[in-house]
Amino acid sequence: MISTLVPRRHRLQLGFVAAMSLALAGTALAQQGGGMPASGPMPPASMSATPTAPIDRAKILTDLGVFGDFSVYKLRPEYAMLPAADRKAAAAEVLAVIEKHKDKVIVDAYLTRGFDAKSDYFLRVHAYDLAAAQTFLTDFRATKFGSYSDVTENLVGITKALNYITKQKSETLNAGLFAASYSDPAPRYAIMIPVKKNAEWWNLTPEQRLKEIEVHTAPTLQYLVNVKRKLYHATGLSDTDFITYFETNDLGAFNNLLIALAQVPENKYHVRWGNPTVLGTIQSVDSVVKALSGADRSM
Amino acid sequence: MISTLVPRRHRLQLGFVAAMSLALAGTALAQQGGGMPASGPMPPASMSATPTAPIDRAKILTDLGVFGDFSVYKLRPEYAMLPAADRKAAAAEVLAVIEKHKDKVIVDAYLTRGFDAKSDYFLRVHAYDLAAAQTFLTDFRATKFGSYSDVTENLVGITKALNYITKQKSETLNAGLFAASYSDPAPRYAIMIPVKKNAEWWNLTPEQRLKEIEVHTAPTLQYLVNVKRKLYHATGLSDTDFITYFETNDLGAFNNLLIALAQVPENKYHVRWGNPTVLGTIQSVDSVVKALSGADRSM
Amino acid sequence: MISTLVPRRHRLQLGFVAAMSLALAGTALAQQGGGMPASGPMPPASMSATPTAPIDRAKILTDLGVFGDFSVYKLRPEYAMLPAADRKAAAAEVLAVIEKHKDKVIVDAYLTRGFDAKSDYFLRVHAYDLAAAQTFLTDFRATKFGSYSDVTENLVGITKALNYITKQKSETLNAGLFAASYSDPAPRYAIMIPVKKNAEWWNLTPEQRLKEIEVHTAPTLQYLVNVKRKLYHATGLSDTDFITYFETNDLGAFNNLLIALAQVPENKYHVRWGNPTVLGTIQSVDSVVKALSGADRSM
Amino acid sequence: MISTLVPRRHRLQLGFVAAMSLALAGTALAQQGGGMPASGPMPPASMSATPTAPIDRAKILTDLGVFGDFSVYKLRPEYAMLPAADRKAAAAEVLAVIEKHKDKVIVDAYLTRGFDAKSDYFLRVHAYDLAAAQTFLTDFRATKFGSYSDVTENLVGITKALNYITKQKSETLNAGLFAASYSDPAPRYAIMIPVKKNAEWWNLTPEQRLKEIEVHTAPTLQYLVNVKRKLYHATGLSDTDFITYFETNDLGAFNNLLIALAQVPENKYHVRWGNPTVLGTIQSVDSVVKALSGADRSM
Amino acid sequence: MISTLVPRRHRLQLGFVAAMSLALAGTALAQQGGGMPASGPMPPASMSATPTAPIDRAKILTDLGVFGDFSVYKLRPEYAMLPAADRKAAAAEVLAVIEKHKDKVIVDAYLTRGFDAKSDYFLRVHAYDLAAAQTFLTDFRATKFGSYSDVTENLVGITKALNYITKQKSETLNAGLFAASYSDPAPRYAIMIPVKKNAEWWNLTPEQRLKEIEVHTAPTLQYLVNVKRKLYHATGLSDTDFITYFETNDLGAFNNLLIALAQVPENKYHVRWGNPTVLGTIQSVDSVVKALSGADRSM
Repeated sequence: MISTLVPRRHRLQLGFVAAMSLALAGTALAQQGGGMPASGPMPPASMSATPTAPIDRAKILTDLGVFGDFSVYKLRPEYAMLPAADRKAAAAEVLAVIEKHKDKVIVDAYLTRGFDAKSDYFLRVHAYDLAAAQTFLTDFRATKFGSYSDVTENLVGITKALNYITKQKSETLNAGLFAASYSDPAPRYAIMIPVKKNAEWWNLTPEQRLKEIEVHTAPTLQYLVNVKRKLYHATGLSDTDFITYFETNDLGAFNNLLIALAQVPENKYHVRWGNPTVLGTIQSVDSVVKALSGADRSM
Repeated sequence: MISTLVPRRHRLQLGFVAAMSLALAGTALAQQGGGMPASGPMPPASMSATPTAPIDRAKILTDLGVFGDFSVYKLRPEYAMLPAADRKAAAAEVLAVIEKHKDKVIVDAYLTRGFDAKSDYFLRVHAYDLAAAQTFLTDFRATKFGSYSDVTENLVGITKALNYITKQKSETLNAGLFAASYSDPAPRYAIMIPVKKNAEWWNLTPEQRLKEIEVHTAPTLQYLVNVKRKLYHATGLSDTDFITYFETNDLGAFNNLLIALAQVPENKYHVRWGNPTVLGTIQSVDSVVKALSGADRSM
Repeated sequence: MISTLVPRRHRLQLGFVAAMSLALAGTALAQQGGGMPASGPMPPASMSATPTAPIDRAKILTDLGVFGDFSVYKLRPEYAMLPAADRKAAAAEVLAVIEKHKDKVIVDAYLTRGFDAKSDYFLRVHAYDLAAAQTFLTDFRATKFGSYSDVTENLVGITKALNYITKQKSETLNAGLFAASYSDPAPRYAIMIPVKKNAEWWNLTPEQRLKEIEVHTAPTLQYLVNVKRKLYHATGLSDTDFITYFETNDLGAFNNLLIALAQVPENKYHVRWGNPTVLGTIQSVDSVVKALSGADRSM
Repeated sequence: MISTLVPRRHRLQLGFVAAMSLALAGTALAQQGGGMPASGPMPPASMSATPTAPIDRAKILTDLGVFGDFSVYKLRPEYAMLPAADRKAAAAEVLAVIEKHKDKVIVDAYLTRGFDAKSDYFLRVHAYDLAAAQTFLTDFRATKFGSYSDVTENLVGITKALNYITKQKSETLNAGLFAASYSDPAPRYAIMIPVKKNAEWWNLTPEQRLKEIEVHTAPTLQYLVNVKRKLYHATGLSDTDFITYFETNDLGAFNNLLIALAQVPENKYHVRWGNPTVLGTIQSVDSVVKALSGADRSM
Repeated sequence: MISTLVPRRHRLQLGFVAAMSLALAGTALAQQGGGMPASGPMPPASMSATPTAPIDRAKILTDLGVFGDFSVYKLRPEYAMLPAADRKAAAAEVLAVIEKHKDKVIVDAYLTRGFDAKSDYFLRVHAYDLAAAQTFLTDFRATKFGSYSDVTENLVGITKALNYITKQKSETLNAGLFAASYSDPAPRYAIMIPVKKNAEWWNLTPEQRLKEIEVHTAPTLQYLVNVKRKLYHATGLSDTDFITYFETNDLGAFNNLLIALAQVPENKYHVRWGNPTVLGTIQSVDSVVKALSGADRSM
């Protein structure tokens, strides 16, 4: 349905690209699906297509009703004491598990060691069926690398249509969202920030919330060129309302974007914004496992 | 008493079925027992029938004065290092303990690994006598699987008659609660969310609280068809006022239901709503233990 | 002194029996000692009689100026892996330590496993001299069972004369407190709930606090028959103002009592009410140690 | 300087003796040094005399510009499993370290086991040069006993001249502070309570703060006879503004003093008062180590 | 760019020297770069020069757009049980890793044992490219010393131009900042304090914030002579807005400075100020590792 309404170029842009702060307030990336009322019923996830071929990465990253499962890990120190051969074999074992589940989930990995006290890496798993993400993560935890990893945070969200800055409700800002796209070098950093709003926010009228999100969106348009983002809705699925996810190559610009988001009235409704803020470098799974498997120190 | 007032069809519906948000505000499922004043005395749990045969699952899930004991567990990593034979025998040992206690408790199991940082699974135990739940759980902890499980949350509640949306106090809404029932495919997911209200809530007059619960209930009727729920009262038994329990096959609808519950004034009285929100897949005990007992990695 | 003013029947009642919610606001059980001004000096604990014979249980449970030391424990999992012989000998070793200190302390034990995530059991120790409680608990921790127990909460309080609902200040309510006594079957459950008030409470005038406590007391009189309670003052001794302790056989009635206490304005002054709420079954020390020492699994 | 202004009798009294609640609001014990403006510059600690002989205990306990380093410890359970010979030798090893540093630090020890969930003992170290306290504590942690001790709290403060209740600013109350001195039996208990004030407090004018401290001081004079105290300033050195330290033989009187301090408006400005409240028995280092080294259980 | 606008003498001063409290409110040290609008775009960090020679310490400490990565560690007790030879070799291994990365990062070390419950030491790493700091820290964690170190806090910030007290906006105070410089003996102590502002602060107008920072700055000028400081911006990179870093030889003066900063209205906007406050002695890496590697106790 979405694919018939929006040019493919826009779809990809939406799926990954836009440095829109608006997501923080409950919007979503794929607002072009304006015909789908945000508060209306959504087809159950389990009714989404169950692919038998490997998941189409570009498609799942732009589809609605997709689950995003963020799991954050800290390696136990005992891992470093394992025989070098075990640690050398770790990456291959993890890759084999990912290969096994490739028709149900896609997996992204990020190295956080040196940036965050409570984690060494995190995984972002996308799936049309959340149970498939669980099955994958259970298998992952049964690998040598996974079995020495403690989960320190785990948040589950779902992608949904834009709520506020739609063509219908806020035409100019909506156009602004599509007037620019990411043009910096490929992002090397990703940041995951949970967001929870208080009861006062949720009790505003839709019009009041729309107005706050407009004020929130305007100063962020300038960052479309150097910060990508994606939003997941999590109310009732985890102890957060939103999972905001960013990619950038320019952490100074990202810092300025987040300050701009702090400087709008919507910020007064936050009861959680971070806690944790998880900053990592974007890496292949292979590279994350190897970076944490260290030098051969036991031989 | 209840059984003489309400048709059996309704009783079952109430015991498990209704996607009523109203429970969040201190109501209960079995409101048909309208003749029993909510604030009046309740027969002590220990005076309930002590069955000598296996517990009747349908009955205990609809009876009032029943204890629900939710215990949430995280497996210690050492479990994965046990000999495969030990892990293979784990499920049978747990099932034997459940069999031993089947005339005192019923036990439901949920796999949370991959969804929640602080747990791998949780158990829901129902008993007419809370001490019987303790005896079962103590025996469970003495199994190999239980002895490698750390309890990360444990909440105890009791089922009670509806407080607010009774036929007497709120006839239309009460009728709405019985106008629809769950019609989706069998639920695959369960969510346990503790709820605690502040002193301002408890100091409202009964009429004010009734009004808030009516506002809370109206937008939730539409979810009767795809979200089941059950309520336990816990003030003084645990550090929460309520334990809300949901089952669904449609997590998108569930997310929308919880947003609807966030958007009513009653939400302003919450001091705890989640913390933790525990999301799991509904599975047999056997299947939960096996999923966490992993591949044979030690042989 | 107290014993000359109050009939023995009342003293016992007060020492243990009354389901008075009023304690939550800084009252004490033994209000018959009305001649002793609540805010005046109290004889130092060390000047209390130092008995050379075993402590008189009935007396110490009604005396004023007595220390109550609540220590809450979680067994480390390694305990379950000890040889069965060690675990079988554990109870006797603990009982021997209690016997050794019987002229200085009395010890009550409660099994919490299955009810509380952060504990498996707790001890309540009464002593005229707090240092004697420390000596006992240090010896207890040196036993095999104690050495595998981690302390997860430890609160120290002291018994004092009633502050508010005295015969002088509030005659009718005072009479109500003595108009009924516990008549249910022997309590099987105990609950320990710490209570801390905010600065606004402590800055009310004595008259204002008296009024709040009267409002608090009235709805609780009906529970005198099925919930016993006892109060300890802890300001400055631990991070709480009060330790409230309850015994009951009827957890439904107890739940209703605690809801009644939530529904009075005094509740607005609480900054801690629980955290933890510790619910346990009342058992002998012997039985608690044995329940947690499990089946012989190592042979 | 101080010694020329104040009779020696008063100096000692001030160094240790007074049960003044006023310290909680930023005053200090040695207010007789009225000529030294409280907010003015203080000679750097490193410029204080560096004694080559053992520290003079009476002097360092009354001097200004002295550092107090409070470190709170919990023994790991593995300590109890060490060979008895190791544990028997532990006290001597610790005493040797104290002897080695006796020209730089003085060390007081307190047994908290049985009173506090998060500690077994704590140390109070005084030094003219804070780095010397670090060197001592590093050596202490390298002993067998220290190496099995986990630090659960560590606060650093500095002694300063009185801020408020000086002869100049509040003559009558100042006189009251010196009108009585501790006359009870030697204290057997010590209590360490961190205190942090909010921004509203610090933004009051000096006159407003003086008035609050006067109200705070008046009801505390009566406890000069049975509670000693000492104050350390910690803003910026630790996550607290003050470390308040008390000694008493009468915990009932101490409880009443702390309630009196709760009942003044100044209490409304507290954001931390306790957390932890650490209560211990005053013992020699030798006795603390031996009490925690337990019976010979491994032979 | 900066180097062409500001005399070298001023640059060095700014990089390290000034005891300016203003940093707490979002200013930065290098305000002489007044021509660079504070809220304007900043060149991406990755576009900064990538030196092939060892990092120029004086330059990186004064440059803008530099990342500061603060990682705080606690040694696991098992480290003390390693063979003495391992511990003796630890410092050299760490120094070799620093040498390997010397063209990408500079590393400062601080001993915190004895001052802070949650750490034994911390590292401050500066890098033009944050990924280089991660690579270094990952290698550090792979050393013997690093592998026995648990990270208890990790904050990442970036240096930016002054926001408020510029020559243009606040000429007199700006001049005051350069009217004095550090003149005490070389600092022996460093303090790291995270600062987070609330939504009200960020929603003030720039003029309002300027005014608050002026009030904040005035009383701090007197401490330029004895407290050095440096500011890092961290919004979105870590769960804090700022990392403030201080060096001093006079902890009494530092305590007074922090009290002065508590006494201005800006303090009312803090939601985090400390938590943790990490106080350490400034030492070489070699000396920190050796101090924590202790005496030869295993031989």
